[in-house]
Amino acid sequence: MKLSAAFRHACRTHRCGARQVKLFGPRRSPTTRGEMSVCLPVRETHFTSGGGGGGAGSGSSVQSLSLQKTLSAAHENATREIIQRSRAELASVVKAHPAIKPTLAILQAGEDDRLLEMNKKMAGKVGLNVMQICLPRQCTEEEVLEEVLRLNEDANVHGVFLCLPPSLLSRRILNTIKPEKDVDGVSDLNVGRLVSGALSEGLPSPVAGAVLELLARHDAPLAGKTAVLVGLEGPLKVILQVLLQSDGMEVQTSLWSSDSLQKLIRRADVVVVTGTGSVELLPSWFKPGVTLVNCRSALMPESSASEERRMDAESWAEIDSISAALRMQNVVRSSMSWVENQQYQPWTLRPLKLQPLSPVPSDIEISRAQTPKPIVQLAEEIGLLPEELEAYGCTKAKVRLSLLTRLQHQPMGKYVLVAGITPTPLGEGKSTVTIGLVQALSAHLKLNSFACLRQPSQGPTFGVKGGAAGGGYAQVIPMEEFNLHLTGDIHAITAANNLVAAAVDARILHEATQSDKALYNRLVPSVNGVRRFSPIQLGRLQRLGINKSDPSTLTPEEVSSFVRLDLDPAKVTWQRVVDTNDRFLRKITVGQANTEKGHSRQTQFDIAVASEIMAILALTDGLADMKSRLGRMVVGSSRSGQPVTADDLGVTGALAVLMKDAIKPTLMQTLEGTPVFVHAGPFANIAHGNSSVLADQLALKLVGKEGYVVTEAGFGADIGMEKFFNIKCRASGLKPDVVVLVATIRALKMHGGGPSVTAGVPLPKEYIDEDLHLVSEGCSNLKKQIEIAHLFGVPVVVALNIFKTDTEAEIDLVCRIAEASGASAAVPCHHWTRGGRGSVELAHAVKEAAAQKSHFRFLYSLQTPIVEKIRTIAQKVYGADDIELSPEAQAKIEYYNQQGFDTLPVCMAKTHLSLSHMPDKKGVPTGFILPIRDVRASIGAGFIYPLVGTMSTMPGLPTRPCFYDIDLDPNTEEITGLF
Amino acid sequence: MKLSAAFRHACRTHRCGARQVKLFGPRRSPTTRGEMSVCLPVRETHFTSGGGGGGAGSGSSVQSLSLQKTLSAAHENATREIIQRSRAELASVVKAHPAIKPTLAILQAGEDDRLLEMNKKMAGKVGLNVMQICLPRQCTEEEVLEEVLRLNEDANVHGVFLCLPPSLLSRRILNTIKPEKDVDGVSDLNVGRLVSGALSEGLPSPVAGAVLELLARHDAPLAGKTAVLVGLEGPLKVILQVLLQSDGMEVQTSLWSSDSLQKLIRRADVVVVTGTGSVELLPSWFKPGVTLVNCRSALMPESSASEERRMDAESWAEIDSISAALRMQNVVRSSMSWVENQQYQPWTLRPLKLQPLSPVPSDIEISRAQTPKPIVQLAEEIGLLPEELEAYGCTKAKVRLSLLTRLQHQPMGKYVLVAGITPTPLGEGKSTVTIGLVQALSAHLKLNSFACLRQPSQGPTFGVKGGAAGGGYAQVIPMEEFNLHLTGDIHAITAANNLVAAAVDARILHEATQSDKALYNRLVPSVNGVRRFSPIQLGRLQRLGINKSDPSTLTPEEVSSFVRLDLDPAKVTWQRVVDTNDRFLRKITVGQANTEKGHSRQTQFDIAVASEIMAILALTDGLADMKSRLGRMVVGSSRSGQPVTADDLGVTGALAVLMKDAIKPTLMQTLEGTPVFVHAGPFANIAHGNSSVLADQLALKLVGKEGYVVTEAGFGADIGMEKFFNIKCRASGLKPDVVVLVATIRALKMHGGGPSVTAGVPLPKEYIDEDLHLVSEGCSNLKKQIEIAHLFGVPVVVALNIFKTDTEAEIDLVCRIAEASGASAAVPCHHWTRGGRGSVELAHAVKEAAAQKSHFRFLYSLQTPIVEKIRTIAQKVYGADDIELSPEAQAKIEYYNQQGFDTLPVCMAKTHLSLSHMPDKKGVPTGFILPIRDVRASIGAGFIYPLVGTMSTMPGLPTRPCFYDIDLDPNTEEITGLF
Repeated sequence: MKLSAAFRHACRTHRCGARQVKLFGPRRSPTTRGEMSVCLPVRETHFTSGGGGGGAGSGSSVQSLSLQKTLSAAHENATREIIQRSRAELASVVKAHPAIKPTLAILQAGEDDRLLEMNKKMAGKVGLNVMQICLPRQCTEEEVLEEVLRLNEDANVHGVFLCLPPSLLSRRILNTIKPEKDVDGVSDLNVGRLVSGALSEGLPSPVAGAVLELLARHDAPLAGKTAVLVGLEGPLKVILQVLLQSDGMEVQTSLWSSDSLQKLIRRADVVVVTGTGSVELLPSWFKPGVTLVNCRSALMPESSASEERRMDAESWAEIDSISAALRMQNVVRSSMSWVENQQYQPWTLRPLKLQPLSPVPSDIEISRAQTPKPIVQLAEEIGLLPEELEAYGCTKAKVRLSLLTRLQHQPMGKYVLVAGITPTPLGEGKSTVTIGLVQALSAHLKLNSFACLRQPSQGPTFGVKGGAAGGGYAQVIPMEEFNLHLTGDIHAITAANNLVAAAVDARILHEATQSDKALYNRLVPSVNGVRRFSPIQLGRLQRLGINKSDPSTLTPEEVSSFVRLDLDPAKVTWQRVVDTNDRFLRKITVGQANTEKGHSRQTQFDIAVASEIMAILALTDGLADMKSRLGRMVVGSSRSGQPVTADDLGVTGALAVLMKDAIKPTLMQTLEGTPVFVHAGPFANIAHGNSSVLADQLALKLVGKEGYVVTEAGFGADIGMEKFFNIKCRASGLKPDVVVLVATIRALKMHGGGPSVTAGVPLPKEYIDEDLHLVSEGCSNLKKQIEIAHLFGVPVVVALNIFKTDTEAEIDLVCRIAEASGASAAVPCHHWTRGGRGSVELAHAVKEAAAQKSHFRFLYSLQTPIVEKIRTIAQKVYGADDIELSPEAQAKIEYYNQQGFDTLPVCMAKTHLSLSHMPDKKGVPTGFILPIRDVRASIGAGFIYPLVGTMSTMPGLPTRPCFYDIDLDPNTEEITGLF
Repeated sequence: MKLSAAFRHACRTHRCGARQVKLFGPRRSPTTRGEMSVCLPVRETHFTSGGGGGGAGSGSSVQSLSLQKTLSAAHENATREIIQRSRAELASVVKAHPAIKPTLAILQAGEDDRLLEMNKKMAGKVGLNVMQICLPRQCTEEEVLEEVLRLNEDANVHGVFLCLPPSLLSRRILNTIKPEKDVDGVSDLNVGRLVSGALSEGLPSPVAGAVLELLARHDAPLAGKTAVLVGLEGPLKVILQVLLQSDGMEVQTSLWSSDSLQKLIRRADVVVVTGTGSVELLPSWFKPGVTLVNCRSALMPESSASEERRMDAESWAEIDSISAALRMQNVVRSSMSWVENQQYQPWTLRPLKLQPLSPVPSDIEISRAQTPKPIVQLAEEIGLLPEELEAYGCTKAKVRLSLLTRLQHQPMGKYVLVAGITPTPLGEGKSTVTIGLVQALSAHLKLNSFACLRQPSQGPTFGVKGGAAGGGYAQVIPMEEFNLHLTGDIHAITAANNLVAAAVDARILHEATQSDKALYNRLVPSVNGVRRFSPIQLGRLQRLGINKSDPSTLTPEEVSSFVRLDLDPAKVTWQRVVDTNDRFLRKITVGQANTEKGHSRQTQFDIAVASEIMAILALTDGLADMKSRLGRMVVGSSRSGQPVTADDLGVTGALAVLMKDAIKPTLMQTLEGTPVFVHAGPFANIAHGNSSVLADQLALKLVGKEGYVVTEAGFGADIGMEKFFNIKCRASGLKPDVVVLVATIRALKMHGGGPSVTAGVPLPKEYIDEDLHLVSEGCSNLKKQIEIAHLFGVPVVVALNIFKTDTEAEIDLVCRIAEASGASAAVPCHHWTRGGRGSVELAHAVKEAAAQKSHFRFLYSLQTPIVEKIRTIAQKVYGADDIELSPEAQAKIEYYNQQGFDTLPVCMAKTHLSLSHMPDKKGVPTGFILPIRDVRASIGAGFIYPLVGTMSTMPGLPTRPCFYDIDLDPNTEEITGLF
């Protein structure tokens, strides 16, 4: 196609590259009126709403000429066709996105003139809203620039029409407008695109379009004819020249002052003029049948061209009206592109190349050797919009939850859970399997995939265990960012948690030392003579059954019940937290200073990730839900046995404010440049140990129908996976498609009866030499975990994480037993040494398993009594004969039943080192009774947690913590010693 | 100037808009050799260093033709001139920046060809380094793209030459190259710039440049002549057309297949050809004297044009060599632009407009009503480079310290300190004055200015005091970001502080429960059979005087002294911290769990900002210094009285890692869009209460010679200012130019004997009605504070922060007394109601005072004994008759003298509510002896702090904390209730 034909085609059809525009949503009435005028001292802004009315609401124009001239039929047709097309396109945009109001912004210096009136009228005909920014006639470039920058940021503005004197149309101004809002096509980039033939990418110049439209209707065919462009300058000259030449015309350009002007005009079939020259001279030189196109008025504000206009009204009216119509068309196209951008975008992921070394270097060395993609680039590759991203430096970004609304109609991908056999000190490598699997899926099988990981606590990073970014060639990078502050979520949780704790103790003290009246005067103070309850206090009054809103009307009894939470210091269940392994805080006495007047009490600190707020973050589905969960958190009970909540303390709003950023998942990348969400990391024993529902939901939308989201559950499948299914999936409503069950030969050997191991001492030979007997025995644990997954109706793929000491025979044996036990597949994985390439077989197996129909079901109904829920898990999952409740547990269950907490799911707090409650019982213990020592509740998070044995919620530091090896080179800023 | 002339001019001179290139630095030898080849399996990279040698190190070219032809003298001259010019320009670049290696990257598919050889040779002649990326001949667009992205990010690459088959030169590839590295000028943006006449902004096409160069030498004058472009396509066609037309030529374009080709050629004076057509046909149609320019070879890789080349070697050689030379010139120009960008950039600040309402709305409403500029925009306006910025969302960004190196030769601006009279419960408004002043300087006086503020603790935000972002129309926005987590610095400090605390207690426990041998085995374990000291352990050995590095060679005594820090639990001085007002943590007992085996001890939590690590952050001048200060921190003493440090605990590296981001100041903006640094916020009584040295240094560089940096000191001038001068300025070496002393009529009345006030109770009438007597009496405090500033030789401007109850007579009185007391000026300020416009008078006064010569001097020498330092401050600053040391204080001073800490400055911990140690003594107390209760030391921060009375380091929550009013709307995400 010729360039000019393509240009006209571009003026007629909306091309979107390879993508298809899908428009849906309810139809919006096109007669909705827009905003009213807003008057400001410095500038004026007028809004005119679309809907066919036309230039209503325009300011009083000093010298606006009325449009009396009748356009010739051809030009009227051209204009009408463009208007009709644009009107129809606009209607479909508004239908698809009822919330948007496609708007043309007119930035003008001084009053409306005729050109501006015409454009407003056209906007009205098309149905566009018009926003007029009226700067004073003597405004400066800076003032214009400021308005342009503001219009750039205004999501409702889809086109900016600069109605300014030439002195203000500087290159700086023209190139400041965002190219997608440059509806006059005058920015360098739009000109460059047009000249390079890429019409579909930019916005074509409406004036050039109008000239072409006129010539095509008047003078076709153009090939072989001669055109002279007189007085044209800059981009418009070049654009017209390029377009007319591509139509086969010979094109000459000339200044008005050129000596050869007359000679050129005499040869011309078409003369296009603008600029300041005497048009009346030309006709005497014309050869017969010549076409004169005068673009002057369409380009210049009234003041400089009005003289001309009176003289030559007919000619300019044609160009003006068509170009105004094409300008509106550009606004509509711009809004269509915007709508198109809101649709789901196919990924354009560019994986990072990996060249694994042997022997495998340290984790931090591998991480440092790979340069991560800028996070904004990764975000663009996976179809995130710039406004959905909040970068935290170059390698991390929070993703806004508005994505869920934007992609609400997008079908979700497959949901894959990585779980493990019962853990041993030898480790299994669930995290590396998770990361290896997404590296294989995305970088090698070219299938969209996302890993959703938990944010690790900093405690272990500096303690014994090290980080949690994966390892070897299956890592999240930069691993130090992953393992340290990340984007501050755990710090926000710590701050929120400890604000509640401080409020609890301060309240107990204040209640103990003040009369009802004093408390009431302080809680509901007179401010400028007015006493008023805050909204959260009104909430408490309602819970107390006091339906009053005037503080002066409460009876003394009502005042008393309002001001006294009457917390029993011995029944405060809320603990303080730190994100440090600080064993000396396991049991402490607080309030020993004189200022606390003897109100000391015993309490404890937990590690920050054990906070109920972390569990809430992991289970919430949005800001409103999180806020209401935070308010429901029970901090203890009153002396009369009533639960006291965060709402009662008046702290809910502050907690939501502290957590407003933490609720957004953090985007990072794997070593192979594939996307990862890191979000939430609740403790896996007293809480549910799974990453966040929100991250999974965002990822499932982003990967699309054919994609995969791989998430990981803490500890063995009996704990993490059971909680994933019964608690997390229940909260999210998401249905898992596949379970990947991770095992290692070494760990299986230990389950098979292998000797215990000690850190720092060489491994016993059983773990180094082939021992098929131990492996075979240990597979009992693997088989049991497969069975547990099948209880939930989900297919299982066994991933055998290979170490170099594993033998072929051992690997074969495990795979055979796994498949015989019902696994869909069992495959060895080499991601640690080879990255995604080492997990390609696993990726294929997961793909196949995901194609099967999943028959996901919960293990128990929420209506089942608490005791029965516990018994079901104990028997069906752990293999216990029965459970045995302590009197304390029994009493608590009765209390929870009374409080109406009996329909919550159950979150077992049990050792992860055995299927039973006895850590040293490996393999598959049987014939035991599971003792329930106590039962507690996280009402905000929404579960009851029975305690099986003693759970430490505060790790300690060893004699030589990891930090001895951690260092930072102050010159290179390189970190060493993290793993 | 004609466009073509401008183009040739652009090819000859380096234009940089309005800016001047300044080059400086030592001269680098031009013969330095570059890197060697790096071979990768997928692609090959060759490096060739510049230095005159030419194409050394090039790969083996299969069919490279030797350049035997002799170019005609004119063309040789053209090429030589370009080379010489570029060589000279490059030399000046390298001289200015010895560290950079201007490099041409060649991205090729397949082997070297003749064109490539020629380019490498030219690069050599100019002195450029060459990096060759050799992809396989059959590579994909994706592979090319990946390499282009990599080259974009490579700071050493200043130009990318794509030597690829046409099928790979897609628009996507061409437009992915960063425009500033697009040395062939083929991206849409560079084409658009050229077409729009903005040659100085983009890089001109070397091929077009070569054609013009040849024609200018052969065929001048060109005006009136006819040129025919045959077979040219896309951007090059348009560029040449535009350029030749601007030289006055008639230009026709034609396809090889065009029917009218022969007709056009017969008329032509100049014929430019490329593409696949039979050049041999043309000569028969030529009119005499015609010039034929064949661009084919310069545009196409060998494979497709080699046939042609053999036929027409002479013609292509000319174009090829000139265009290759111009390409090198573009690389040099690109590197010059890079160097220019590294220079100090004048600001292009665009203030945000302010339209103050009356009555003044709440702080959060004002903050929310103003849309902040995107932080990257503000950064660009004040001359920060993109790579110096780490955005944290859209409104905050950390600034990298590399800026200090980049601008090391930049003269610094004026340094203004905002201090206050002795504080009263009525407040003075130092923060609002600080912000109002920079708003006035930058937005109204158009002088570069920066505010440097402290990061507030979250404790008060949720407690009583509220936030610290200023107030009214003088605020930092968004104020909720400022007041909450900001960029996580305080959280990092908390984590680092508490890691030290956990390490202290764990170490005490481990030493108490293990033998020397067990401890040694754990501290220096055998890893894979090897025992090794970590670097930090070697440091401890050295401090112990044990010069050994082999763990097996230590004597039992040496082992014992190495493994035993022998911390005396009663002498641990390190406290834990939280950033919450938690009064119950003021005195606690830790270690009461069974697992801690009876090693409980009493200790306390401080508010996080009271951590020594915060004081270090505020005083450090870089990463190396911070790390060494962290290592020097004393956590307690051993039973034998030796100080035990963080280095002894082995935790220094981990602390530096935790603090690596916190060391970078955070950029935000005021309500009027002027820049603010927020960084560090050490407690103002037990520490020095000033924001960071680093933020001040960065800001002083950024504002430039004529600019202003305004920073604030905590509490009254007797405390915050004294510490600013004696501690902070001593650490930074910076000299203050002006002190702004803030006062209010109300506070002066209280100093003059006005009644005390109670929160929630209406103000006594003395503070509402005119009372010149009270004002006059209270000015004694103002006068004293002015005198204190003059002790340090710095001029003082008094800023009277106006309230609506203040009368003209009161205002006049204060201003008169202030000026009579030696203030350079005293001006009323209305920033709270009017923003920067309300502080214009203050800004002028500050400007005048800063123009005076400052005679800054310290109050004492570091060599003065500790007691004398304390006495000097007590007498000269506080007005005490003398000091009185408790026996404890006396003993500590002797201990510090022994330890060699006697040359540290002194940081007084005194009440801020009076010049004396008695909080209720307002005005100017006299005739008192200052009691020194105790003396402590922050060795890492670098000061001794005498305690005058009891300092609480942990605030509490009131009965009704601020949080009752704080809320978050889950739908709009709007925050209410913060102030």
